[in-house]
Amino acid sequence: MRQLYPPDMLVEGFMTETIRGAALAYGFEEYDGPVLEPLELFLAKSGSELVLEQSYLFTDRGGRQVVMRPEMTPTLARMIAGDRELHLPARWMSFPVCFRYERPQRGRVREFRQFNCDILGSADVSADVEVVLVLDRIMRNLGALPDTYSIRFSDRRLASAVLGRLGVPVDLHPAAFRAIDRRSKMDDEAWSEWASSLLGGYSGAVVQFSSCSSLDDPWLVGLAGGTPEWEQLRVFRDMLGRAGVASAAFDAGIVRGLDYYTGVVFELTDTGGANRRAICGGGRYDNLVGMFGGSPVPGVGFGLGMLTLRLYLETYGLLPPGVSSSGAPDAYMAVFSPLERPYATELAETLRNAGISVEIDLGGGRMGSQFRNAARRMARLALVIGPDEAETRSVTVKDMASGTQQRMTAVEAVDRVVAEREHQRR
Amino acid sequence: MRQLYPPDMLVEGFMTETIRGAALAYGFEEYDGPVLEPLELFLAKSGSELVLEQSYLFTDRGGRQVVMRPEMTPTLARMIAGDRELHLPARWMSFPVCFRYERPQRGRVREFRQFNCDILGSADVSADVEVVLVLDRIMRNLGALPDTYSIRFSDRRLASAVLGRLGVPVDLHPAAFRAIDRRSKMDDEAWSEWASSLLGGYSGAVVQFSSCSSLDDPWLVGLAGGTPEWEQLRVFRDMLGRAGVASAAFDAGIVRGLDYYTGVVFELTDTGGANRRAICGGGRYDNLVGMFGGSPVPGVGFGLGMLTLRLYLETYGLLPPGVSSSGAPDAYMAVFSPLERPYATELAETLRNAGISVEIDLGGGRMGSQFRNAARRMARLALVIGPDEAETRSVTVKDMASGTQQRMTAVEAVDRVVAEREHQRR
Repeated sequence: MRQLYPPDMLVEGFMTETIRGAALAYGFEEYDGPVLEPLELFLAKSGSELVLEQSYLFTDRGGRQVVMRPEMTPTLARMIAGDRELHLPARWMSFPVCFRYERPQRGRVREFRQFNCDILGSADVSADVEVVLVLDRIMRNLGALPDTYSIRFSDRRLASAVLGRLGVPVDLHPAAFRAIDRRSKMDDEAWSEWASSLLGGYSGAVVQFSSCSSLDDPWLVGLAGGTPEWEQLRVFRDMLGRAGVASAAFDAGIVRGLDYYTGVVFELTDTGGANRRAICGGGRYDNLVGMFGGSPVPGVGFGLGMLTLRLYLETYGLLPPGVSSSGAPDAYMAVFSPLERPYATELAETLRNAGISVEIDLGGGRMGSQFRNAARRMARLALVIGPDEAETRSVTVKDMASGTQQRMTAVEAVDRVVAEREHQRR
Repeated sequence: MRQLYPPDMLVEGFMTETIRGAALAYGFEEYDGPVLEPLELFLAKSGSELVLEQSYLFTDRGGRQVVMRPEMTPTLARMIAGDRELHLPARWMSFPVCFRYERPQRGRVREFRQFNCDILGSADVSADVEVVLVLDRIMRNLGALPDTYSIRFSDRRLASAVLGRLGVPVDLHPAAFRAIDRRSKMDDEAWSEWASSLLGGYSGAVVQFSSCSSLDDPWLVGLAGGTPEWEQLRVFRDMLGRAGVASAAFDAGIVRGLDYYTGVVFELTDTGGANRRAICGGGRYDNLVGMFGGSPVPGVGFGLGMLTLRLYLETYGLLPPGVSSSGAPDAYMAVFSPLERPYATELAETLRNAGISVEIDLGGGRMGSQFRNAARRMARLALVIGPDEAETRSVTVKDMASGTQQRMTAVEAVDRVVAEREHQRR
């Protein structure tokens, strides 16, 4: 159950704004789609395990089979295919809430918010590079150090080429991808037994390839060096390096679990031991939009889990202290008795008209208790309204840190609050 | 189906930021809750028509009856009751997506986003005033003129007192409220027939009371003037007036449809004829949190429909022209051929590191076509990278409006783009 109390929501807002800012630096445009989708949308696209075994699916009052989206990409593909005016390539981002019926564990819940970021309409390696640059900038803008996370990448085209040269028949490649994807998630013995049952004698080739962690590995270069598949991934790696990405490295053990990937695949993980689940996964999918009719549109993108990202930020102490006070009002207004409430409300509105945030105490307790409320809400200034202030249409401004206070007019109070806010920002 | 393409999302973002800013001026804190809730949560609270006839409800894989939330308030009540550390009064806001299985029509869709704003823990009239002040500030900050919208309010306590004095038995008051709520939504004859079947001879009293549109109406003053119920609503009205709210007026025909309201009720509507559905509805509910165990917590708040608000803004031409260009990058980078891509990407990263948003053309067309893309994305500047620029590690900056262009270094380009951005902001 996804339930965010205000302190959690400040963190969510901080992450959202940082991520959105990073993607805006690359010209991404935001979109949103429906939570509830027809079953058919996902059945052919995401892989049937995700939809039939892990999704919230039901029949609505109109007799239609519907699914609460387990991921956003099929919706994106339908929207892209549905807009004939759209100019491609398009860079689209979104923050969907998605749903999967799985056993909850650390970093995995049934209702979760993602960041999605995709480039549609370019088959060029530059588009692959661009989305990884966004991802790396998100991490750097959040203050992550390059040795605390890694972006491991591979390419399904290269994997297919190598498996082909090792004699694995093409019709077994989807099963080989599934086996590679599960290898790091199961213990060795169980995996070997399962992979052999799936792939027979070919499971050895899968082990050999998926253990490769360098594009320059002599065994790999001997098999695939100079092929278009190998060459393209080298260009991808070199462009990332030249653009300053320090955390990206080839790993043939990466293929990702979704059926629709056709090219580059990557995931971002914590290099420490505290967070085992990938924070982000993505890749290239060149046939997805074509499924909705019309011409095929190549795409590349990723989904980033907001909860796994938060766990990562907490692990490395990357949540700035200022986040928790970012919801504080500029001033907290303490009101002596109900008699002063009409004047207090009128004065508060005057200040709000000047762009100042003012929280009026509604508890109606003693002044000491109202000042404690002001401190709890982290306000730097209290505005005190008693009978004298109401009668003279003035306000007493109290500095919460020093305790000093001063009677002034509303106009003076506006200046005082604005000055305090500017002072805090510096 | 709620589907927002980027131009719609810019409008949604503009409305969201304006609304959030208005609520922050009152010290509201943001929260979020689950889309999927147990059926029981809504059954007792929202009224059974909303849940059993209009909600998406189904049985999940664990055999639990669940509902896609048709509204946010019961979730809010559970969260407030569930946090024993929480200091009350609390001012909470949220932007939930909600679901109702109804026949779609103008301003009403099955999946819709709301703004919710509630004060919990204060039974004082000041809290009622405060939420209406937020609502009115939202409208004013959006540029709405006071004569284009009205906030009509009443009070279920006053309605009960008056109906009581007119002889309507207390056990018929919930039916009387339903009849008042439907009166403006049905044609007169159908309503009369239905109300008589529901209330018998008492339907005349309902007509008489619900036609009152002034608290100072002599008939109403004669019946209820000086009672605590009448007096409290007069204080509410006077505080709103003193705080400068010009659009609020008493209307005994307002009771709102949800079962849980116990006090002040209000709605905001377009005064013109184009948008019939209420943009916002709300009121006081003093028993809702108590249903979750522990002591009862008084609450007051409202829900505002983002779609109905958008229709209103469009009707009155209130969407600023700048909204549609607010997603434009600071600069659009045109790249002559694939050979220059590594340098172009490296340079773009340098500019992004300096806080500039740069969209690189990924289409790979002729320069003229890339400049048209720059214009389509509303960029003020194009950054041209050809073989000369790549060789000399420079960039040609083209002003899209005047067509003038100038070769410069990366450092100079940063200054140029920042200067252009500052110029546009002024």
